[in-house]
Amino acid sequence: MSERQNQYDIGLDKTPANYVPLSPLSFLARSAAVYPDQFSTVYEGRSFTWHQTHERCKRFASWLAGKGIGVGDTVAAMLPNIPAMNEAHFAVPMTGAVLNALNIRLDAPSIAFQLDHGGAKIILVDPEFSGVITDALAQMKGPKPFVVDVDDAAFKGGKRIGEIEYEAAVAQGDPAFTAILPRDEWDAIALSYTSGTTGNPKGVVTHHRGAYLNAVSNILAGNLGQHPVYLWTLPMFHCNGWCFPWTIAAAAGVNVCLRKVEPTKIFELIKQHGVTHMCGAPIVYNTLINAPDAPKGDAARRVVGLIAGAAPPVAVLEGAENIGIKLTHVYGLTEVYGPASVCAEQPGWDDLPAAERARMKRRQGVPYPLEEGVTVIDPQTMREVPRDGETIGEVMFRGNIVMKGYLKNEEATKEAFEGGWFHTGDLGVLDAQGYVTIKDRSKDIIISGGENISSVEVEDILYKHPAVLFAAVVAKPDPKWGEVPCAFVELKDGASATEADIIAFCRTHMSGFKTPKAVVFGPIPKTSTGKIQKFLLRNEVGSVKAISA
Amino acid sequence: MSERQNQYDIGLDKTPANYVPLSPLSFLARSAAVYPDQFSTVYEGRSFTWHQTHERCKRFASWLAGKGIGVGDTVAAMLPNIPAMNEAHFAVPMTGAVLNALNIRLDAPSIAFQLDHGGAKIILVDPEFSGVITDALAQMKGPKPFVVDVDDAAFKGGKRIGEIEYEAAVAQGDPAFTAILPRDEWDAIALSYTSGTTGNPKGVVTHHRGAYLNAVSNILAGNLGQHPVYLWTLPMFHCNGWCFPWTIAAAAGVNVCLRKVEPTKIFELIKQHGVTHMCGAPIVYNTLINAPDAPKGDAARRVVGLIAGAAPPVAVLEGAENIGIKLTHVYGLTEVYGPASVCAEQPGWDDLPAAERARMKRRQGVPYPLEEGVTVIDPQTMREVPRDGETIGEVMFRGNIVMKGYLKNEEATKEAFEGGWFHTGDLGVLDAQGYVTIKDRSKDIIISGGENISSVEVEDILYKHPAVLFAAVVAKPDPKWGEVPCAFVELKDGASATEADIIAFCRTHMSGFKTPKAVVFGPIPKTSTGKIQKFLLRNEVGSVKAISA
Repeated sequence: MSERQNQYDIGLDKTPANYVPLSPLSFLARSAAVYPDQFSTVYEGRSFTWHQTHERCKRFASWLAGKGIGVGDTVAAMLPNIPAMNEAHFAVPMTGAVLNALNIRLDAPSIAFQLDHGGAKIILVDPEFSGVITDALAQMKGPKPFVVDVDDAAFKGGKRIGEIEYEAAVAQGDPAFTAILPRDEWDAIALSYTSGTTGNPKGVVTHHRGAYLNAVSNILAGNLGQHPVYLWTLPMFHCNGWCFPWTIAAAAGVNVCLRKVEPTKIFELIKQHGVTHMCGAPIVYNTLINAPDAPKGDAARRVVGLIAGAAPPVAVLEGAENIGIKLTHVYGLTEVYGPASVCAEQPGWDDLPAAERARMKRRQGVPYPLEEGVTVIDPQTMREVPRDGETIGEVMFRGNIVMKGYLKNEEATKEAFEGGWFHTGDLGVLDAQGYVTIKDRSKDIIISGGENISSVEVEDILYKHPAVLFAAVVAKPDPKWGEVPCAFVELKDGASATEADIIAFCRTHMSGFKTPKAVVFGPIPKTSTGKIQKFLLRNEVGSVKAISA
Repeated sequence: MSERQNQYDIGLDKTPANYVPLSPLSFLARSAAVYPDQFSTVYEGRSFTWHQTHERCKRFASWLAGKGIGVGDTVAAMLPNIPAMNEAHFAVPMTGAVLNALNIRLDAPSIAFQLDHGGAKIILVDPEFSGVITDALAQMKGPKPFVVDVDDAAFKGGKRIGEIEYEAAVAQGDPAFTAILPRDEWDAIALSYTSGTTGNPKGVVTHHRGAYLNAVSNILAGNLGQHPVYLWTLPMFHCNGWCFPWTIAAAAGVNVCLRKVEPTKIFELIKQHGVTHMCGAPIVYNTLINAPDAPKGDAARRVVGLIAGAAPPVAVLEGAENIGIKLTHVYGLTEVYGPASVCAEQPGWDDLPAAERARMKRRQGVPYPLEEGVTVIDPQTMREVPRDGETIGEVMFRGNIVMKGYLKNEEATKEAFEGGWFHTGDLGVLDAQGYVTIKDRSKDIIISGGENISSVEVEDILYKHPAVLFAAVVAKPDPKWGEVPCAFVELKDGASATEADIIAFCRTHMSGFKTPKAVVFGPIPKTSTGKIQKFLLRNEVGSVKAISA
């Protein structure tokens, strides 16, 4: 009887009274109305209340609208974690337009590609990036965006390259501007390009509905409660800061802005503002753990940290606790609005020995509170793999916290959603508890003598060596075995170790075939978000000499 | 440019990978998957885990489906707060059907009306209500529902009147049953009749989308965090227990079931299970506060209580704190899924003197976290009233936490949603902070000599009198003044006061014209949910003699 019309379908339609498109813009409006005088933002001696932030967003939105920006237009931002970047997450969608947050570490050709592809009509530029943006604009093929400079008294250098400064635009805007709620909650809110390692990046389009739901999911997964004090260690350009601009508005918290990840500054801000929550890749926490001035024991303030971007090494999970940061491991990708799975803590974990607890916590876990599903699937059969912790399949998501698709790329979109799931390209296993653990990106599996070696597993052992700060393992082509593991190691300041030391250490902790056959010392290249750039190491690996194979 | 198709509309459609209808059924599935071994329910020596609850719901849903129950059908329940009632909130919608939870205090004619009007095909019956249901079935005009008895070892008496017992049906069901997610999140999930005081009650139809969003809103508004231990002092039949069956599933908490509100039992359960949260009308808290065995001071466990149903008297707000219960005042109606506004606490309130704090906290407040709007509007102009704390208008809601409408009553639905807002029928004011305060139901305003008197205001003063347990003020027709206030007062056990005492007390606290001109002592009639039944008092008031006017 599922197709007939029933009594609950008649005369009970949507009306403006009982249906409003879900949009994170509602969070800002509510916090401004309910908590007008509470701080929304602090940064370098400046601060704003929720009323002020709301008003500034409406003013800037009104200015944008005056420049012709409206539904379906693109506004780009090349900004660090400053108040204007947070405001752009509201002001741009208030006009119906889409925010294209640019990775501030990108080079001019990549930026030019994104501005052309996304069709940005306006770009906000921080003086630190005036040079690269000038180059990018010169390299664009299509119409160039109108440039708005966003000055920052806390940054010395750079120059103005635009036609107006942000504060002047804000001042010109009308605080009585009425934000446009999306016609449909499926309307786009943001465009973020994935940092592809081959070919041109893809433009991930997200929608108001997903942004709304993941903003709330963050509150639930991170136990943010009301009025968290959130430190911006995670770049806002990175998957819209995992939706946290919208999350902090929903929780009426405080955005503690931060231009650059510097341990001394971070510890100072944590203390000064009573920071309760932060996010970041392992590199961020690793940097804090290894900072000589890290407060320890009773001196450390208790902070909840969400960590993602790579499976957190055991040393990071343990080390963070020593400096007061209790980590929750989350996992996701730009295509799922940042984190969309969480290693949900089970009762009793706190009583486990540290190593065992860390082993539990470094799994990628289960669906985020408001995400429908994450699991490991055999992409051939589209069936879930057995819960044996061994059978490798592809990690896949489904639910409302999944992108609309890739901009102007129907083929890639179709491929990504094949079989009713979003295919991450990450390889993983399911354990008896139903938790996902990522073993590798497809291309990070090393196949040696027909045996699969997880580079993550080998890296994890390397991180246990007391001298190792960062480690990455990639496949090195080998005439006999096909591939062998090659380790790249960055040592801690003042520490020392030889190739033989490292290999001997590994050999006592893993099977011989998994032990790296070569160790290269030196700084390891990382993306702006702390992901190790293995593709650069792979380019290098051909010239490395293996000591044995 | 808002109507043209833009680049974000092309090739970016909904797919099963990125769009799933919002439904609270997803919360149960997630908690069962992530926290299978944690307790979901405890009741009288029985307990279930989330895995078991999920399995029981699937089994019962499968049994229902086997009986022909499917999309758009109605299943009624006449049950107290026992595990089966919680399970019905999932098992019924798992088949696509709609749960009609019946008020267990209703009489046979009212129940017969609801069963006929809603078209219930199956009814779950607790033995305590076998008599009234037998009568109701006999009085029905249309086809009678199939009766399922739900036995309860904790209840002595009653009898089985059905064709199968609930546990047998559960046992017959298939635990591998696949729950039907709604075709559309706008599909109905529940039907609840308002306890109208005149004419037949209206059937409020709610949908999956709203149930999902308000379930989450409860977590945010009540700061439930993860794994709350929730005591069922609020009837589950009342607006589906304010959506808390779904909230507790979303938070993977524990449902501490409770057949009857009894102070000794409640204090015992709070201690035994470590209850963290509860809900109820002022009458529930008042009963606890006045219980001789209420634990006080350090002996009291800290519990967060949501309170609604009537503006909580200052004495209740203060008294609850003395027995360890910190109250958050919420407000709503069946039409808005239970609570949809909250008196959001502002920093600093805890430092205010008790009376001032109570004054702040008894306002109805601001929109629930995921509700779009609640405010006071002049129903003639549909404009918000000034924020002066004085201009009376009608309290109205809009957003996603508003019913689909009234079943088979298009006229009432249209009227309720007139002008794009849901009209509550409650009269209130807006203050400078934008908080709504209810002054009265339209018919509760007393107009004396042309001056409006808020009966709530007068009642609040009466509650300050140390001998008063309950108070209600209604208009008494008066030849000179049109109307005068008449007070009905129920005294505390062992306390005494005369009419002259009460009037003298009032006179020192309010203007003369507001002072009650008559006081009637005796038990005050209340609904099963603790609302004072003023219409009964109004019937009585004609025969009361005023002492002066």
